[in-house]
Amino acid sequence: MALPIPSPDILVNLPPVEVKENDVCVKMIAAPINPSDINRIEGVYPVRPPVPAVGGYEGVGEVYAVGSKVNGFSPGDWVIPSPPSSGTWQTYVVKEESVWHKIDKACPMEYAATITVNPLTALRMLEDFVVLNSGDSVVQNGATSIVGQCVIQLARLRGISTINLIRDRAGSDEAREQLKALGADEVFSESQLNVKNVKSLLVNLPEPALGFNCVGGNAASLVLKYLREGGTMVTYGGMSKKPITVSTTSFIFKDLALRGFWLQSWLSMGKVKECREMIDYLLGLARDGKLKYETELVPFDEFPVGLDKALGKLGRQPKQVITF
Amino acid sequence: MALPIPSPDILVNLPPVEVKENDVCVKMIAAPINPSDINRIEGVYPVRPPVPAVGGYEGVGEVYAVGSKVNGFSPGDWVIPSPPSSGTWQTYVVKEESVWHKIDKACPMEYAATITVNPLTALRMLEDFVVLNSGDSVVQNGATSIVGQCVIQLARLRGISTINLIRDRAGSDEAREQLKALGADEVFSESQLNVKNVKSLLVNLPEPALGFNCVGGNAASLVLKYLREGGTMVTYGGMSKKPITVSTTSFIFKDLALRGFWLQSWLSMGKVKECREMIDYLLGLARDGKLKYETELVPFDEFPVGLDKALGKLGRQPKQVITF
Repeated sequence: MALPIPSPDILVNLPPVEVKENDVCVKMIAAPINPSDINRIEGVYPVRPPVPAVGGYEGVGEVYAVGSKVNGFSPGDWVIPSPPSSGTWQTYVVKEESVWHKIDKACPMEYAATITVNPLTALRMLEDFVVLNSGDSVVQNGATSIVGQCVIQLARLRGISTINLIRDRAGSDEAREQLKALGADEVFSESQLNVKNVKSLLVNLPEPALGFNCVGGNAASLVLKYLREGGTMVTYGGMSKKPITVSTTSFIFKDLALRGFWLQSWLSMGKVKECREMIDYLLGLARDGKLKYETELVPFDEFPVGLDKALGKLGRQPKQVITF
Repeated sequence: MALPIPSPDILVNLPPVEVKENDVCVKMIAAPINPSDINRIEGVYPVRPPVPAVGGYEGVGEVYAVGSKVNGFSPGDWVIPSPPSSGTWQTYVVKEESVWHKIDKACPMEYAATITVNPLTALRMLEDFVVLNSGDSVVQNGATSIVGQCVIQLARLRGISTINLIRDRAGSDEAREQLKALGADEVFSESQLNVKNVKSLLVNLPEPALGFNCVGGNAASLVLKYLREGGTMVTYGGMSKKPITVSTTSFIFKDLALRGFWLQSWLSMGKVKECREMIDYLLGLARDGKLKYETELVPFDEFPVGLDKALGKLGRQPKQVITF
């Protein structure tokens, strides 16, 4: 198969960088293409690195060389930037020692490359808004996303049921089975919910006090319908590019609360230790097979193909993870 | 002027009621027609008294007779039902002693009749969502409503500035001056806000962390535009009958929170003592001329005229207060 030739605007050679006394030079192993990476490049993200910039915000690499004053790392260690940090789409990354977090090499590299952005979002959203106890439930749309899959599994580990909404499209039966295999309690496509009382479809589950929205439009309205009185919907994405529309009575009589979650904002609070502890927890789950999601490895040379797939140009695709 | 003859469906004679040993019989003096009274009659309110029912939810009356075991009230006392209670649109109301709260007769009766629903809503909304300090600001739409006018005055008493949005219509210049006379810092009509950056209109005020919405539609979007990062909009009405539409980025990047307030829900928490203390505070302000709003007294016989005015059929009108 003839591969598209990478445009010089996409793949460029950068001059060598000096490794200063507190720096660690990391040879990247793998880094994903996340939607937020694309938003940063599009210029629609409120926080952007100064340009020209290297893309990518998370990934895993192997320590290649360390500065003279670095003693926490040795060549061969696996590290991730934590909190995540711009510029992971390059073969070698040089950053200060404090940027890097050493991880257990027993964790599969595709999980190490992708643990910070999506799984951490799922974990924080289950913690930060509503006190959930075993036996409770949550509802979410966009359930096939990596965050959605993580929500299902992390909730299940805590005895929390999930009600999952997916879009109507080719392969939705297969997607339903995949989510059920991960531990989803209920999976509905949007068309199944064209009934007056969506809650009548919940036979054995309590009404959820917490919902997650990464789609907007009608899919957000469906999450709101499922929520119980006093419930909270947290928006963390807008895949449909449609706004969220809410009736006045939802606020007044149903006492719903609508909030938002942005990982970058949470990370900016300087919770480095807490962030790294959560990452170790999540990587431990991935290592033990308790946290799973699908990824597809793409050699760096084929970046444009991975980018097209990440942009959805080739239909639904697993998370694209660039390998170096 | 020929008055419309009250329909027997609206004004009816009820048979005498026995005053039991713990009851207080109150001869009503005045009771307002609030939008929520109309919603209850329309059947669109989630909590409704059993039918047939007498309308009205607040008002002031004079004790006419007391049951044999009542010792907290004497004939001639002024009382209001507190928490408010259905059925104030009648000449005599018989309810248990515990329903009634004795008030200071020095308070003008039109304020005593109307203090519980709208001013209490304004007071609670300033308390329950965001910690406000002197020097802060709040933004609201529907600022000419009684709640809106109370927000302006109660905020000002605490050193909090108000940014007030009003609709474009005949008399909006007059309304602006009225609100400024009450202490409004800024008053904008919606058409004045057809600018890219509404905040550029705020020269000397801090960005508000709290906003109130009783309109919906575009007027709600304008409140959201004024809020600062991390701000909260509280919806307590939907006068335009349009829903609230919010962008995904407002939640994720601006970290806005949307909530609702319903006085009846707050009252149902059994905070009788707290409710009565707040009412005494508000009535004291009204007595001292520190809390003002316009009312129009309507004799009970002319109820249908008052109802038409309350329904907005005759243009903008003061709060209609029925006198008995």
